[in-house]
Amino acid sequence: MKSVLPQAVERLSSVLSSLPGIGPKTANRLTFYLLGRKDEELKEFGDAFSELKDKVVNCSTCHIIAESDPCPICSDSGRDTDKIAVVEESLDVLALEKARFSGRYHVLGGQISPINNVGPDDLTIDALLSRLSRGDTKEVILATDPSLEGEATALYIDEHISLKQKEGAIPASVTVTRLARGLPVGGDLEYADELTLSRALEGRRSYDGQK
Amino acid sequence: MKSVLPQAVERLSSVLSSLPGIGPKTANRLTFYLLGRKDEELKEFGDAFSELKDKVVNCSTCHIIAESDPCPICSDSGRDTDKIAVVEESLDVLALEKARFSGRYHVLGGQISPINNVGPDDLTIDALLSRLSRGDTKEVILATDPSLEGEATALYIDEHISLKQKEGAIPASVTVTRLARGLPVGGDLEYADELTLSRALEGRRSYDGQK
Repeated sequence: MKSVLPQAVERLSSVLSSLPGIGPKTANRLTFYLLGRKDEELKEFGDAFSELKDKVVNCSTCHIIAESDPCPICSDSGRDTDKIAVVEESLDVLALEKARFSGRYHVLGGQISPINNVGPDDLTIDALLSRLSRGDTKEVILATDPSLEGEATALYIDEHISLKQKEGAIPASVTVTRLARGLPVGGDLEYADELTLSRALEGRRSYDGQK
Repeated sequence: MKSVLPQAVERLSSVLSSLPGIGPKTANRLTFYLLGRKDEELKEFGDAFSELKDKVVNCSTCHIIAESDPCPICSDSGRDTDKIAVVEESLDVLALEKARFSGRYHVLGGQISPINNVGPDDLTIDALLSRLSRGDTKEVILATDPSLEGEATALYIDEHISLKQKEGAIPASVTVTRLARGLPVGGDLEYADELTLSRALEGRRSYDGQK
C-alpha cells in the first residue's frame, strides 16, 4: 500500500517503532502528538537524541556511564569507600542510589547468559577482581537481578573471589554478601510466588531486628 | 537527590518521559537502549525529530497532514470523488486506507468535547458544509469514533447537513451514512459488551448479504 502520510511523518514513526516496547500504532500516535508540538520543542527533542553520547564516557574504575572519569561516585571520598555493590547495568545504580546505598559500585555490563552468547569475559568481572586485590574493600554486595541469569552471575563472581582469596591475590578479610530475597514491601502475601515465599521464610529475621 | 547520571542522559530521559504513555522508568530504559546505538543512528533519530514539521502542511480541502496542498488523495482523480469519509484525525485516514476505502476524506481535527473545551467551531465542520454545497458529493460517511464524543460529533454534523439541505445550500441528493456498529471480526461473542451486542442485533443483515 502506498502511504498517504508525508515522508517526514513516516520517518519519525519508523524511528520510534524501532525502539524496544514501541509498536507501529504507538509510534504513529506519538508522531501525531509531536506534530502538535512547537518547532523549537522538536528541535530540542532532536538535539537530545543527537547529542546523547557527545559527553558520555565510562568510568574506568566502576564502569558506570558518566560525564567524567573517574565518575562523581568514585571520586567522592565522603562515601563508604570500603563497600562495592556489583550491579548489571548503570540503571541499577540509580535504583540503589534511591534506596540510599552509600558505597561504591561496579557495573558488570550485563549478566552471564549463554543463550544470548554473553560469557564471563564479556563482563567487567576481571576488572572487579583486580579492584578487590588492591585491598581497600571490606564488603562486596552482589546486587545482580534475582533472576536465573543474575543468580548464575552472582555465583560465578562469588566462586572467583573465593578462588583468588585462596591464592592470596584478594585479602581473606573481603566478605561477599547478596541482597536479601523476600516479600516486596507493600506486596500481598496471598499473591507471592512460592519461590519468593520460601526465600522469605529462609531469610526470616528476629522481629526486633526488622525495626 | 543529586543525579549520578550524565546530563545528556538525564536530558533525553526527561524528553522521552514528556511523551504520552511513557513514564520515567520506560524513558530511562529507552535512553540506556539508545546509549548502545551508534552515533550515526542517534544523529538520524535526532534529525527525524527536528525535521518532522519542515515539509508538512495541511491540505486546504480535506485538512489531512500532507507534503503538498492539495494532498495526494484530493488530487487523485482515480478515487471515488463523490464519497467523503468524515474522520477526527489524520491517523484515522490511515486506518480507513488499510480497510481499502477509496473515496475522499474530511479531517475534523478532533471531536466535540465540552469537557476538553472543544466546540463545533474548533473543528473543520464549516469547511465540510461548504465542500458539500459545491454539489459533487453523493455520500457523506460519518466515521468518527464510536465513543460518546464521536457520536455527539456525528449527530451535530448530520443535523447541520439536514439544516443546510432544507435551506437549499446543500443538494437534497447528498446522503449521510454512519459506519456500522457490531461485533469486531475475530472477537468473542461471550466477551462482547451489551451495548455492542445490542447494536449488532439492531444492525443484523440477511445472511446472504454478509457473503
